[in-house]
Amino acid sequence: MSYQPAKGTRDLLPEEMRKWQWVIDRIREVYERYGFAPLETPAFESFELLSAKGGLGEAVREEIYNFKDKGGRELGLRFDFTVPLARVLANNPNLPRPFKRYQIGKVWRYDNPQALRYREFWQADADTIGSQSMMADAECIAVAVDCLKAIGFKEFNIRVNNRKLIEGIMEKVGVPKEKVADAFRSIDKMDKIGESGVERELDGKGIDAKKVLAAVRLEGKNEELLQKVEEKFGASDGLNELKELLKLAKQMGMEKWIKIDLSLVRGLDYYTGPVFEVALGGGVSAGGGGRYDKLIKVMGGPDLPATGISLGLSRVIAIADEKGLLKADPPVRVFVAAVNDWVRPDALKIVQSVRNDGIAAETDIAGRKLAKQMEWAGAAGFPFVAIVGPEELKKGSVKLRDMKTGKEKLVKTEKLGQEIAKAAKK
Amino acid sequence: MSYQPAKGTRDLLPEEMRKWQWVIDRIREVYERYGFAPLETPAFESFELLSAKGGLGEAVREEIYNFKDKGGRELGLRFDFTVPLARVLANNPNLPRPFKRYQIGKVWRYDNPQALRYREFWQADADTIGSQSMMADAECIAVAVDCLKAIGFKEFNIRVNNRKLIEGIMEKVGVPKEKVADAFRSIDKMDKIGESGVERELDGKGIDAKKVLAAVRLEGKNEELLQKVEEKFGASDGLNELKELLKLAKQMGMEKWIKIDLSLVRGLDYYTGPVFEVALGGGVSAGGGGRYDKLIKVMGGPDLPATGISLGLSRVIAIADEKGLLKADPPVRVFVAAVNDWVRPDALKIVQSVRNDGIAAETDIAGRKLAKQMEWAGAAGFPFVAIVGPEELKKGSVKLRDMKTGKEKLVKTEKLGQEIAKAAKK
Repeated sequence: MSYQPAKGTRDLLPEEMRKWQWVIDRIREVYERYGFAPLETPAFESFELLSAKGGLGEAVREEIYNFKDKGGRELGLRFDFTVPLARVLANNPNLPRPFKRYQIGKVWRYDNPQALRYREFWQADADTIGSQSMMADAECIAVAVDCLKAIGFKEFNIRVNNRKLIEGIMEKVGVPKEKVADAFRSIDKMDKIGESGVERELDGKGIDAKKVLAAVRLEGKNEELLQKVEEKFGASDGLNELKELLKLAKQMGMEKWIKIDLSLVRGLDYYTGPVFEVALGGGVSAGGGGRYDKLIKVMGGPDLPATGISLGLSRVIAIADEKGLLKADPPVRVFVAAVNDWVRPDALKIVQSVRNDGIAAETDIAGRKLAKQMEWAGAAGFPFVAIVGPEELKKGSVKLRDMKTGKEKLVKTEKLGQEIAKAAKK
Repeated sequence: MSYQPAKGTRDLLPEEMRKWQWVIDRIREVYERYGFAPLETPAFESFELLSAKGGLGEAVREEIYNFKDKGGRELGLRFDFTVPLARVLANNPNLPRPFKRYQIGKVWRYDNPQALRYREFWQADADTIGSQSMMADAECIAVAVDCLKAIGFKEFNIRVNNRKLIEGIMEKVGVPKEKVADAFRSIDKMDKIGESGVERELDGKGIDAKKVLAAVRLEGKNEELLQKVEEKFGASDGLNELKELLKLAKQMGMEKWIKIDLSLVRGLDYYTGPVFEVALGGGVSAGGGGRYDKLIKVMGGPDLPATGISLGLSRVIAIADEKGLLKADPPVRVFVAAVNDWVRPDALKIVQSVRNDGIAAETDIAGRKLAKQMEWAGAAGFPFVAIVGPEELKKGSVKLRDMKTGKEKLVKTEKLGQEIAKAAKK
C-alpha cells in the first residue's frame, strides 16, 4: 500500500499548515473589514447542479470528481464556490441584498498536476450579489489589494479590463460576432504560448490576428490608455464602466495597484463587465474574477447582478513563502522540564497555570531524563524552558531559561506566564 | 432541479457560520496552548487505505463515500482523522516524537441522518503519538475540558474508563474471551436501548447479563469506585492506569470534570487503554476518544503508542447555541451613509480610512437615497452609522450615530475609526 497522499493532493505538515493558517486568518480579517460575511457550503453537490449549462461546470465537466451515494444520488465535489453560491441564493430567497459573502476552503478538479497546481486546492472568494454599481467591482479590487498587503506583498498588480469594451473592440477590428469567444480563448493563452503562438492560433481560426493583436497590445498609463482607446474606437458603455471603475478605485486609494490591460480577457464565457486578474511579482497569476450579471439566474437563482474576486491560496502562499513573508511562528511557548521524577506533579501544575495564562506550554510526556528533555526542547525550537527543581520549588520558584541567549533567571511560579509573555515581546 | 444542499449536508449561512468560526477559533486556541500543532490532510484518500483491516474503516466500510478518479484510482472521502494521521506517520518517519497534532475539519459518512447527525460533519481532533505515559491521556482529558470551558459550558463531564480494566472484569464475571468484544458492543448501546435492552441482547448472546451489568453498574465517587473495584476484582494493570490517570488529572486541576464510569466501553475494537467520552449537560455525547497503541502500526505506520480525543462540532455547537453561549457578533462595524450623490467619493474615502483602522466598514453600493440607506443600515444591524454630508465635510467632520441610543455627535473624519472603536467598547 502507498502512504503518499492521493495523486494531486498533499498533506500540510504543521510547519507548513501554520503558514496557511496565518494567511487564511489575514484574508478572513480583510474580507470581514470590507463587510463580506462568511458562508460555508458542503464539499459535494448534486452533479446535475455542478454540470448545469451556462455555469463553469459545462466547461470543466470532465474535471469534476463525481460519484453516486449509496442512495443512488449523482454527486460531485465542488470545483468552485460560485455554483454553490448560486444554489444558496436560489434556496434562500430572503437573504438581505446586496449579499456580500466570502468563502475560504478547498475545491477539487481532476486536472493534470503541474507546478503549483493541485487537484485539491484552496480558494478564498469574496462576492457581492445584487449590486450593479461599479462600487461593488471597485471593492473587489480593493479587497484583493488589501489581502495581498496584509500578507506582506509589496510588488503586485491587479490587471483590469472590461468584457463589454473588448467585445466592442473585437467587432470594430472585424472579428465576426460568433468568433469573439474563440478569439478570447486564444488571447487568454498569451502567457502560455506567447504572442506569436496567439497570432498563429487566431490566423488558424480565420481571424485577422494582426488587427486583433494591435488592439489588445495598446499600452500606456491607465488614463492615457483609456484616452487612446476612446480616440481609436470611440465612446462605449464598456469604456464608461472602466472609467467609472478607475475613478472609484482612485478614491479608494487603489490606483497604484491597478493596470488596465486590454489583453486580459479571461477565458470564461460568463463574464459580462469588468474582469480582474491578480498578478504577483513576475506575472504569476494568483487569482482573478469579474462581473457575472447573468450567471446566478442561469444557474437557477434569482435574476441578480454579481461580481467577485477569487484568490488561489496555493500560489499566493508559495510565492509569499519564497519571499519570506510568512510568519509561521507558533504561539509563544515554553517547555516545562522536570529535574527528577518527584517534581513531575509540580511541573504539571505549573504547565497548567501557564496554559491558563494563555501561553502554550508542554512538559515531558515520554519519561525522559533532564538532559534529554533539554535536548528535545532545543530541537523542537522552544524559545523558553522553565526548569522545575526541588531547591527552587522550596522558594516557590522555577528557573526560566531564554534558549536564544542561554540566560537563566529565577521566577516565582505564579508569575511565570507573565514573565514569559514579557520576555517574548523583547 | 433541487436547490437544497445534498442529502445529509447543509449550508452554514453567515449568522450560523460566524458561530462555527467562533467555536473553531476557541478550540484552535486551546489546542495550541496544549502544544498540539495543526495538520491538514486531503479530503479523499485511497479506498484501500480507508477500508484497511484493523482500522475503523473495516467497520464503517459501507458508510464510505467512494469513487474512482478519471485515472481509475479507487478513492474515498475521509470518515475520520485517525486513518489519515496513521498514513502521515507512515509517510513521514522523521516527524519529531512525541508528535502532538490537531486537525479540525469535515469528514463524511453515509449514515442515516438523525437529529444532530449529518453525512458531512465536523470534527476537532487532538492526538499524541509516541507517548506511553498516562500524561498524554490526562492531557486529552484536560484539553477537552478547557475547550468546553472556553466555549462557555459550565455543566459537562468527561466519562472515563479503561479497556484493560473492563476486559479483565469481563473475564472475571465469566464472559468468554471471544465474546468480550460482543459484550462491549451491547453495553455501548446503554444510552440507546436502556439497561433492559442491553440485558436482553447480552442474554441473547449467551452472556450472563446479570453479572455483567452488576459489574458495570458499580457506582461511587471516583476514588471510592476505584476502591470498590479493587476489592471486588483485585489489582490489575488497567486499574493502575486508571489510578495514575486520575492522579495526574487531579494535579492538572481537572478532577471535578471527570466521572469514572465502568459502563463506558466505546464500541470500537482498537482501543487499548483509557477511553473517554465527553458528556454535555443532559448526557448528550459530544465526542470522545482513548488510547490506541496498536492502530498506527496496523494501518502501516510505525509501531507507536497513541492516544487522542475528538470533539464533534455539530453537537457541541447545537447545544452551546441552545444555551446561548455563542458569541456570533460580527466585528465592530460602521455603515457610512452619503447624504447625496456628490459626497459619495468622500464617503468612499472615509470607508477606506476606517477599514485601514481595522474596523469593518461598508457604504451604499446600490445607489439608494439617504433614507433607504439608513433603513438598510438598521435592518442589517450596524451598531454605528457615519453620515457624510456637505456641511459637516466643510468642517472636516461627519455625524456619527449610535444606532442603539440614537445619539449623534460630530466627529473629525480622521478620528472616526478611533471614535467607533472607543464607542464599541462601552
